[in-house]
Amino acid sequence: MISPVTHPATDSHVTGNRLYDLIVELFPICRSITGNGVRQSLQILQQHIPLTVHEVASGTQVFDWTVPKEWNIRDAYIKNAKGEKIVDFKNSTLHVLNYSTPVHKKMSFAELKLHLFTLPSQPSLIPYRTSYYTENWGFCLSHNQYLAMTEEEEYEVCIDSSLENGHLTYGEYLITGETPDEVLISCHICHPSLCNDNLSGISIATLLAKELSSLSLRYSYRFLFIPGTIGSITWLALHEQSAFNIKHGLVTTLLGNQGNFTYKRSRRGNTEIDQVVEFLLTNTGKEHTIIDFFPYGYDERQYCSPGFNLPVGCLMRTPHGQFPEYHTSADNLDFVQAPYLQEAFSLFWTIIQTLEHNRTYLNLAPKCEPQLGKRGLYKAISGEADSKSREMAMLWLLNMSDGEHSLLDIASKSAIEVETLKKVADVLVQHQLLQQLP
Amino acid sequence: MISPVTHPATDSHVTGNRLYDLIVELFPICRSITGNGVRQSLQILQQHIPLTVHEVASGTQVFDWTVPKEWNIRDAYIKNAKGEKIVDFKNSTLHVLNYSTPVHKKMSFAELKLHLFTLPSQPSLIPYRTSYYTENWGFCLSHNQYLAMTEEEEYEVCIDSSLENGHLTYGEYLITGETPDEVLISCHICHPSLCNDNLSGISIATLLAKELSSLSLRYSYRFLFIPGTIGSITWLALHEQSAFNIKHGLVTTLLGNQGNFTYKRSRRGNTEIDQVVEFLLTNTGKEHTIIDFFPYGYDERQYCSPGFNLPVGCLMRTPHGQFPEYHTSADNLDFVQAPYLQEAFSLFWTIIQTLEHNRTYLNLAPKCEPQLGKRGLYKAISGEADSKSREMAMLWLLNMSDGEHSLLDIASKSAIEVETLKKVADVLVQHQLLQQLP
Amino acid sequence: MISPVTHPATDSHVTGNRLYDLIVELFPICRSITGNGVRQSLQILQQHIPLTVHEVASGTQVFDWTVPKEWNIRDAYIKNAKGEKIVDFKNSTLHVLNYSTPVHKKMSFAELKLHLFTLPSQPSLIPYRTSYYTENWGFCLSHNQYLAMTEEEEYEVCIDSSLENGHLTYGEYLITGETPDEVLISCHICHPSLCNDNLSGISIATLLAKELSSLSLRYSYRFLFIPGTIGSITWLALHEQSAFNIKHGLVTTLLGNQGNFTYKRSRRGNTEIDQVVEFLLTNTGKEHTIIDFFPYGYDERQYCSPGFNLPVGCLMRTPHGQFPEYHTSADNLDFVQAPYLQEAFSLFWTIIQTLEHNRTYLNLAPKCEPQLGKRGLYKAISGEADSKSREMAMLWLLNMSDGEHSLLDIASKSAIEVETLKKVADVLVQHQLLQQLP
Repeated sequence: MISPVTHPATDSHVTGNRLYDLIVELFPICRSITGNGVRQSLQILQQHIPLTVHEVASGTQVFDWTVPKEWNIRDAYIKNAKGEKIVDFKNSTLHVLNYSTPVHKKMSFAELKLHLFTLPSQPSLIPYRTSYYTENWGFCLSHNQYLAMTEEEEYEVCIDSSLENGHLTYGEYLITGETPDEVLISCHICHPSLCNDNLSGISIATLLAKELSSLSLRYSYRFLFIPGTIGSITWLALHEQSAFNIKHGLVTTLLGNQGNFTYKRSRRGNTEIDQVVEFLLTNTGKEHTIIDFFPYGYDERQYCSPGFNLPVGCLMRTPHGQFPEYHTSADNLDFVQAPYLQEAFSLFWTIIQTLEHNRTYLNLAPKCEPQLGKRGLYKAISGEADSKSREMAMLWLLNMSDGEHSLLDIASKSAIEVETLKKVADVLVQHQLLQQLP
Repeated sequence: MISPVTHPATDSHVTGNRLYDLIVELFPICRSITGNGVRQSLQILQQHIPLTVHEVASGTQVFDWTVPKEWNIRDAYIKNAKGEKIVDFKNSTLHVLNYSTPVHKKMSFAELKLHLFTLPSQPSLIPYRTSYYTENWGFCLSHNQYLAMTEEEEYEVCIDSSLENGHLTYGEYLITGETPDEVLISCHICHPSLCNDNLSGISIATLLAKELSSLSLRYSYRFLFIPGTIGSITWLALHEQSAFNIKHGLVTTLLGNQGNFTYKRSRRGNTEIDQVVEFLLTNTGKEHTIIDFFPYGYDERQYCSPGFNLPVGCLMRTPHGQFPEYHTSADNLDFVQAPYLQEAFSLFWTIIQTLEHNRTYLNLAPKCEPQLGKRGLYKAISGEADSKSREMAMLWLLNMSDGEHSLLDIASKSAIEVETLKKVADVLVQHQLLQQLP
Repeated sequence: MISPVTHPATDSHVTGNRLYDLIVELFPICRSITGNGVRQSLQILQQHIPLTVHEVASGTQVFDWTVPKEWNIRDAYIKNAKGEKIVDFKNSTLHVLNYSTPVHKKMSFAELKLHLFTLPSQPSLIPYRTSYYTENWGFCLSHNQYLAMTEEEEYEVCIDSSLENGHLTYGEYLITGETPDEVLISCHICHPSLCNDNLSGISIATLLAKELSSLSLRYSYRFLFIPGTIGSITWLALHEQSAFNIKHGLVTTLLGNQGNFTYKRSRRGNTEIDQVVEFLLTNTGKEHTIIDFFPYGYDERQYCSPGFNLPVGCLMRTPHGQFPEYHTSADNLDFVQAPYLQEAFSLFWTIIQTLEHNRTYLNLAPKCEPQLGKRGLYKAISGEADSKSREMAMLWLLNMSDGEHSLLDIASKSAIEVETLKKVADVLVQHQLLQQLP
């Protein structure tokens, strides 16, 4: 087994630039909850990881929901009376109300404006709007564009889309570890040209999967690239039993801007993934926010519905709706930056290391301290600069390893990081002073 | 069933003025732990609610206590050498040491002053003093009155009272609800002309009972109008088994002045009534105080004795002994005010609403969120100004209704008030998404 | 039974001066983990208490350890080329590296300096150094002495010591109480001429034992005077089963300087001894520190190893390593002072009183309050200045004595001290209102 210990975050081959480049590649595609935009995006991810693309037919019943018709779009525009395109899908995938039904006709401004969406308070930005479950069509445009239109003018509107029986498409990649216990990393792939809100999560999940794929791992790792809400509901409906293999999970999104990290706890609130993320965020010494679960947000809503109640939290930076660029054309390639992506990747990497290492041990000489000196245990590590902290790590491990304290528990009490405890525990196991519990 | 929801506090017919007027009517009566003052007071309350008046004979053994002799008083005064009444019971019922034995004779000041009680630090106020269980007589007067008396003068003292076998009198009113589980509202009726310390509680309890009497209710409501200590001991001794029907209870007193609310927890400390009151006080956003139970104060001492340990707290404003008017003639009709009485009434009303509504539900579609849109559930309420919070209420209810969280639990987590949750739960029950648990 | 109540801390015959005088007597002796220095010290203690001296042969296996060879020393010095003693064991027992093997030869400074230990940052102080488990010899001296030596000079070094099969010696004194449940007081006796670090603990333990020996006690009290680490390991190995009779315990050391008290919790963290010490320290109103258990420090490391996990904390003033005099010649007779020793003794005395008194009672009249007045219970104590607090103590005792709250629990809730509660409980027991539970 090549332990992840040998691949600490700082040694990872993944750089902020690689994370950013993948975002650049995915940015122009018009994704939605179904359709070719999703397929095209998953094909790009397949250049990095061998993910499986699943197709679920429209009309499939998934719990209380039905997989919707597939939506595809080729072009869309509004032309003014002079025939000039004043709103053009080719300039931004956000210009079309996502899931718009096809339309092509001339109409008065009075009629058209019922289908126009703008942000008066942010007049230079295009809003992102959807209408998945109510058939409608519309255009999103900057309020400045809107103000330039005239009441008297007739406009030609064209949305060259289709909404037909087809499939819901999602990507899945399972890395099989020693045990069938799974760590879930889930990200949504239904947002069109938006960088922080979904591409940052997709990029980090993809390259995380790629890095992990070459390692021997304790846990199995399941990566899901799914449309929001209907995607997680579909996956859970199709895997109603095996979903319970998920022992730890994170929904990943909103990781590319400069905001501090925010961790939203799982519904259970104090599971191992909650403890790990909170411990590591606290240990960074940097400002961060921990919030309790609430039934709104991303796909953790479904994973944490009471019938599943899986130990899945959501790790992000500034939460949705709390930054002005959210769901606008300003969530673009300027908004996310390589160093923030890299820092977020490192945090995920450390979380996984910690989960992998968070074992529980049993002290085999529990009555009084064993004599470490006669085993050369001090000497064995005295050459290292941090020998003092290694000695303390030994004492903590021996004292707390009564079978009821994991390395994370010991780390929390001792303020010694889990990775150090793991290295020292390995030494104590070699000397038959500790035994790893199953 | 006419749900209390349709009678929210703000719609109650009870105004601060009505609460105040009842206090005005009760104020002149000389109450004590027994006697005609209590009977006369209960007769006034019977004009509002059909309460039953119970008479318990002197000498009745009630646990470790014995119901005392009945005390009645007709007149009392001190005359100076000129025959002028310098202290006159007709001016204030406080002038007589409550439970004074009869006396009528002339005596020197030296002898008399052993029976005089004043407040040197508040020289214009008459103190309130009692001697229930040690036979004695005395007068309470302002220190200014006392200073006007002369050492050499002979005084005529008269207390035209009787202390004889008779009865302890208390009032009781039970409103029968759907279940035999009871909510107890208990107030003491043994203080003479004191407004905040006991009349405020009596007035609120009476009009609360009157309002509730016209409603169909989940719980049964027991209102007790009893003399302090011996009254609750007597009631508990006579209802040793049925006392355990009390599932929630409040002792009510000290509610008419401008002080912030104070809630003294039940002995158990975290029962439903404790949670409800604390939640509502916190939700007011106004300053208030929560204090742990301590075995001193009002009749909660008896309800919370270890052999009963009933879930009964005490809701008041400024606690006893912590305001200068306490147990003096300054606790009068100027000290209590209609707006404070009304605010306190509203709080009790909301507490009862919350208890009535605090049900637990089971999500019947617990795997992932149900699709609310296809049921028109968003639309059903979209006309309402608070539709956004109603949608959040739906998500909270669905997510938390695993059978282990009451509406109050959900309210505490979501900061959505119980009344809103109840309304939304009713809608979800109609759509067979929730089921109310018994 | 003469209750310790009649011997409150302030009445104890033990004065700070007596505690200090015992330190003066023990100070000159060169103690170590074995040898005649320990025997000589224990003989001095035997003048105060009839402790048993145990001898455990070198080579005895004690869990993972082996009792080492016995070390004795008669003299040691370094002479310069002129034959002058420039370092002399007779001036300070610290001058010799503790457990030095014998040596007597002339050598160059280059060779000698590998065996010299100084404190460059505290140049006037002699450090205290040991080498118990690695054979070595050496001298400890002030850095000023070191700087006065010359590179070119030849030195004569002599350590007249022996390291041979012999015994490990420790002292033990058991005061048998009503029950076999034991309170352990453990102090280390292996440090040579150091006052705060070990003599303060030895002195307090000795005179505490002496005071207790004349009392009838509920608990049995075991006093251990042992070498650090190997001593507690030896005792635990020889008493592997009976060690579990220890129900409460304290390691005593570092009690003679002016620092605030520090309490290091037992590994379990919330045992009765932890509660008692924390309650009493909080009640002093003086600054103090409570720290969680950590597996480093004194013999609590062994008592709290996971195979024993005994309820043993460590009570000290400024912790080891946190004052500049620690393990230097400045931890001398000037550093510890009689008033600090006396205050520490009083704290131990009060801890023991509290343990002795911390009973649980059952209210025999648990339904409502009993009528105290008719029993003259108010009167019985009304002559005392603190009668009001006695009455409150009665109410608290009656209310909380449901069999699940000890006097300490009641003290914590009521802020009434345990001693007062005990006195009042005795009265209530006499009146058959409370019954002491076994």
